Parts: sequence; structure tokens; C-alpha cells
Amino acid sequence: MANYRLDLQYEGTRYDGWQKQGNTKNTIQGRLETLLGEYCKEEIALIGSGRTDAGAHAAGQVANFHTTKKLDEEDLRDYLNDHLPGDIGVTKVQAVEEAFHARHHASQKVYVYRVWNSRVKNVLEGRYLFQSPEELDLEQMKQAAAHLVGTHDFRSFCANGRMKKSTVRTVFSIDIQRIGEEVRLTFCGNGFLYNMVRMMAGTLLQVGEGKLLPEEMPSILEQKNRQAAGVTLPAKGLLLQSVSYGDSPKS
Amino acid sequence: MANYRLDLQYEGTRYDGWQKQGNTKNTIQGRLETLLGEYCKEEIALIGSGRTDAGAHAAGQVANFHTTKKLDEEDLRDYLNDHLPGDIGVTKVQAVEEAFHARHHASQKVYVYRVWNSRVKNVLEGRYLFQSPEELDLEQMKQAAAHLVGTHDFRSFCANGRMKKSTVRTVFSIDIQRIGEEVRLTFCGNGFLYNMVRMMAGTLLQVGEGKLLPEEMPSILEQKNRQAAGVTLPAKGLLLQSVSYGDSPKS
Repeated sequence: MANYRLDLQYEGTRYDGWQKQGNTKNTIQGRLETLLGEYCKEEIALIGSGRTDAGAHAAGQVANFHTTKKLDEEDLRDYLNDHLPGDIGVTKVQAVEEAFHARHHASQKVYVYRVWNSRVKNVLEGRYLFQSPEELDLEQMKQAAAHLVGTHDFRSFCANGRMKKSTVRTVFSIDIQRIGEEVRLTFCGNGFLYNMVRMMAGTLLQVGEGKLLPEEMPSILEQKNRQAAGVTLPAKGLLLQSVSYGDSPKS
Repeated sequence: MANYRLDLQYEGTRYDGWQKQGNTKNTIQGRLETLLGEYCKEEIALIGSGRTDAGAHAAGQVANFHTTKKLDEEDLRDYLNDHLPGDIGVTKVQAVEEAFHARHHASQKVYVYRVWNSRVKNVLEGRYLFQSPEELDLEQMKQAAAHLVGTHDFRSFCANGRMKKSTVRTVFSIDIQRIGEEVRLTFCGNGFLYNMVRMMAGTLLQVGEGKLLPEEMPSILEQKNRQAAGVTLPAKGLLLQSVSYGDSPKS
């Protein structure tokens, strides 16, 4: 079987997220599988590096699929881009070794959460920003973020309360910077739980607003209870920036 | 009469341009006048710095209107932003002297034309980019642009063939730069004719593709004939970046 890796971008506004659910075809995965099936003339199962939420965006999602066919990479890329709607795009198609698995072999993911910290809405980039006009203390946010970096049980930051698998993840870094009226939070980790980035961003925003203290972060983690953490910010501010594959099998 | 200046942003994709035409309400001007009329409880005529084409965008459009009412600037700004659709925004409302006229007193306009110079579509910023995959020689484009800078009769770059008024304009500068896969053309001038920026961008792109030579620019200008110039690029790549008011009366 041949194995192909797709590098993908999408503006998630119109979609019910990455993953096919029941009969809904309005997912990124669903749209791609339909077109891949037509191109390959066989049923295709597309494996994403992970789900992204309804309304969240991606600049560097990665997926792979197996097929009995030998494909021309550029031709497939152009076919998909020609047939996909304008808000989904394929930046690269690449033959990879048969064992490559977009989810299992992902070693690092970078998510960006963009806050538009102004009373005045941003029209030109509004669909990628969550607007929050309250004044933010970035130093406090950075102190709080430092407590979340590292290997922890992030159950308090998991929207799936009945999660059976391990909720331990490693956050390599959380970068917080102001770019004009934007406050950009960049999360780098080996993986993230359901809604984890949006909850960490919400919790850090509440720290910035003075509603939570940096020193409360260890206790929030220790409680292993979703009620302990702060609010979940809307998906529209969330972007999957990139997925890295460091371990063998190499992509 | 009080006089108020509005600084505006819009994503023009859904609109029939700035200016009200006949009965269509689907213009930026029309949307704003309706809301201003409701807010001021009197009919409002909004004066823009100039028209922008259907589908073109603005980061810094300027307009003004007169009213018998004394208005609170921040309250009006927030009212408009709350009631406007998401793709039109007001960044500032400012009381100005009665004589200020957004069109007559504009001394400089900056337009940006963004070309996505890649075979692979840009999903996240696609609505602000014109995609053209052909290889571009930026040095040739810069040489051609230098011929267009200055005070010239730009009739060859005017889509309105029956233009009765002067077609002489001064282009202060044309900057051309590559930013990754984007080629960004920035035009600064005292004013631009109907479709003039899109035609200059199209002509420069044809120079970049080797279809026209920089030395042909003087002849194109001299012919004073729209057929002499190159193609008109689509409006979606065009952004009105800013409008400046240098002369009295000060805004």
C-alpha cells in the first residue's frame, strides 16, 4: 500500500471541526475523504494528526492515507485545491513510508490563540481573533503560564470529564506576546487534550484580568477537576500552527 | 452643523463597493448611512474619501458627515460596531471642523495590491490576495514602476473612457516587495482614477512575467488610451491602506 501525507490549511468558520461525526459531511476530514475517494476511485480513510474543534483553524494540519494506487503528488495537490472550497487548502502532498501515522507519530504540536485586546473590532482578521477589551497584565499571565509548562496531569484542562486514557501531557513552552492590539498566546506541547488549549488560554486571560492569580495554577492542576480551571475561550481564536514528526519512522 | 469624521475598515467581498448606486443598499456607504440616520434620527449623507470597487477592501477608509446633533464619539463608534455586519468596522469617530471634507481635502492615498505568487492557494488570507503562480522578475517590475512615478496624465490607466475631468495625477511612490510567496505592490499618490491601481498592478505583473518591457511604460502613458495599458487585476487583491489629510482645514 502506498501512504501519502497531506499538509493542510483551513479556515474552520463554516465547518463542524476536523472529524467526521455520524452522518455529517460538513467536516474537514469528510470533505477531503470524499475528494480523495473520487480521485483514487476507492474508499479512503484519512488520518489527521488530531481533531480540531468546530470553528477552529489550521495553518499546518497534517494527515495521511493509504491507497492501492500510485499517485502523482503535484497532480493530487492541484486536484484537491481545484475541487475543495476556498476555505480548505492543501499545501503539500508527499509519499511517505508505509508505517507513517499522522496521529501516532506526531511528536510536537504548536497551537496559537489570538486575542484582540481592544474595544474596537478588527474587521480584516476578525475571523481569527477572539475580541476581549479588558486590560491585560502580561507579566502576570507569563508567570501563570510558567506553572503550566512541563509534564503534568492536565485533567483540570480537559473538557471530556469521562476521559479514560491518560490525561498527562507535556507542555514544552507557552509564549505570550503583545503585537499592537493583539495578545498572542503560543502553546507548544507533545499533545493537547480536548479543549485544553482554549481552557489554558481562558485561564491565562483571567489571570491577565486579575481574576485569578499565577500562584493558583498549581492548585488548579492538582485538583484534576475541570471546574477548577478558568473559562473555555471560543474556537474562532484558535489556530493549529504546525505539527512536527521527530521520531522514526520519519515522514 | 457638527461634522464628524469616521475611520473605517471593511472586507469588501460581499459588497457592491463603497458608493450607493441607484436602489442598491448593499454598499458600504449605504449600510453606514442607514445606521447613522437611525442614530441621529435625521437623514445623513456620508462623504467618502473616494469610491472603492466592488470586492475591494479598506484598512483605513475615511468619511465624514454633517448633523444637527451633538454626538458622543465613543458611543457612536460602539453603536455602529455593534450594529454593522462583521465585515465593516469603525475604528474611530472624531468631531472635526465644519469645513472638513473627506474627499476634497484628501492629500494622499495609499493602496496595496497583494499578489499570491504561488501555485498553491492561500486559504487563510485568500480573500485579500490575487493568486498568480507565474514567476515574476521583481527587478523588471521595479524599473517599470519607476516610469509611472511622478505627475502624468494617467488616461491610459483609467477605466472610464469618457472621463471629462482631468486625468492628471501624481504618484509619489510605488513600492514592490516580496514577502515569502507574496508580492506586495504599494501605491502612494495624491489620488487615483477609476481602476487605476488595479490596471497599474496588472501592467506591472505583465512586466514581471516578461510580457511587457519597462521601457514600454512611457509610450503607454503617452498613448492616453486604455487599450495601451495592461490587464485590470481583480478587486479582491486591492486594499485601501490609508488616506492622509495634510492641508488645511485640518481634520
